[in-house]
Amino acid sequence: MAPVAPRSGDAIFANIERVNAELFTLTYGAIVRQLLTDLEEVEEVNKQLDQMGYNIGIRLIDEFLAKSNVSRCVDFRETADVIAKVGFKMFLGVTASVTNWDAEGTCCSIVLEDNPLVDFVELPDNYQGLYYCNILSGVIRGALDMVSMKAEVTWLRDALRGDDVFELQVKLLKQVPEEYPYKDDE
Amino acid sequence: MAPVAPRSGDAIFANIERVNAELFTLTYGAIVRQLLTDLEEVEEVNKQLDQMGYNIGIRLIDEFLAKSNVSRCVDFRETADVIAKVGFKMFLGVTASVTNWDAEGTCCSIVLEDNPLVDFVELPDNYQGLYYCNILSGVIRGALDMVSMKAEVTWLRDALRGDDVFELQVKLLKQVPEEYPYKDDE
Repeated sequence: MAPVAPRSGDAIFANIERVNAELFTLTYGAIVRQLLTDLEEVEEVNKQLDQMGYNIGIRLIDEFLAKSNVSRCVDFRETADVIAKVGFKMFLGVTASVTNWDAEGTCCSIVLEDNPLVDFVELPDNYQGLYYCNILSGVIRGALDMVSMKAEVTWLRDALRGDDVFELQVKLLKQVPEEYPYKDDE
Repeated sequence: MAPVAPRSGDAIFANIERVNAELFTLTYGAIVRQLLTDLEEVEEVNKQLDQMGYNIGIRLIDEFLAKSNVSRCVDFRETADVIAKVGFKMFLGVTASVTNWDAEGTCCSIVLEDNPLVDFVELPDNYQGLYYCNILSGVIRGALDMVSMKAEVTWLRDALRGDDVFELQVKLLKQVPEEYPYKDDE
């Protein structure tokens, strides 16, 4: 019998509709630039990117569950692993790793060495407070929300701010028992 | 001898870094929503999308020339053909066709039956004036500008407004003679 749940994103990524990564990178850059122009405050831009990511995450989770063949994760540890190994591969074509687990298994880091969002990007001095990739934290938060995990997602390291990699801390705040009826808008 | 200039985008598209199309679609949707919130006037949103596209186009042309192996086009006819057959395939993974040439060979239509930007999109009644895909017209305008062709790009048909396909009219306004020294990076 064939295995039911492939846990690698590679095979899925190979069989999914895709667009050119540079087009995506430039389009994302255009959003950030637009927000910087419209909102002026870097803090506001961070918030807005996170919110946009959240809205994307709550929809992307459907595609993820439909295409990834991932079965229900038993706990947050497994969930984080699936996000890093399958999710990032499936959507961005890169693999992330999971580290720095706390003893309770409710907080970890997702580390990204390769990040297509930041190709050709350099932050000017006056935007040093910007979390350029904040859309990613929002996506994770949104996707987790839809599988009943309230999480806080924060950047610990950011290669655009001089760190060697991107590191996102994902902290599980509350696991909501699933209730019927599900929210079915958005 | 092997042919020097493959004119199909398929082979190029297969060998290029890509991201998930749905992520791109949702991200693009998030931009449009953001602009509608920030700018309020649909006309302004159309303009802004076009401008964002222009800024993307003037950069994307580099990737295009570097990866596509397309040699210098002899005229606007050939250029339009390359945009439709190679460009759209290479960046969006879809093919477009070129029709409705005028007698002078300076105006044609690029017709798109499949358009990954609009998956899951429906325009609410109050946004009927929106050219949701206006970023595309900007990209074409920007890319043409960088090869010394000033063009006007307008939507003749838009599937989101009830037409059966997307049809972009591309009208060559002026071909600027190239001057030495050529830009020789890229």
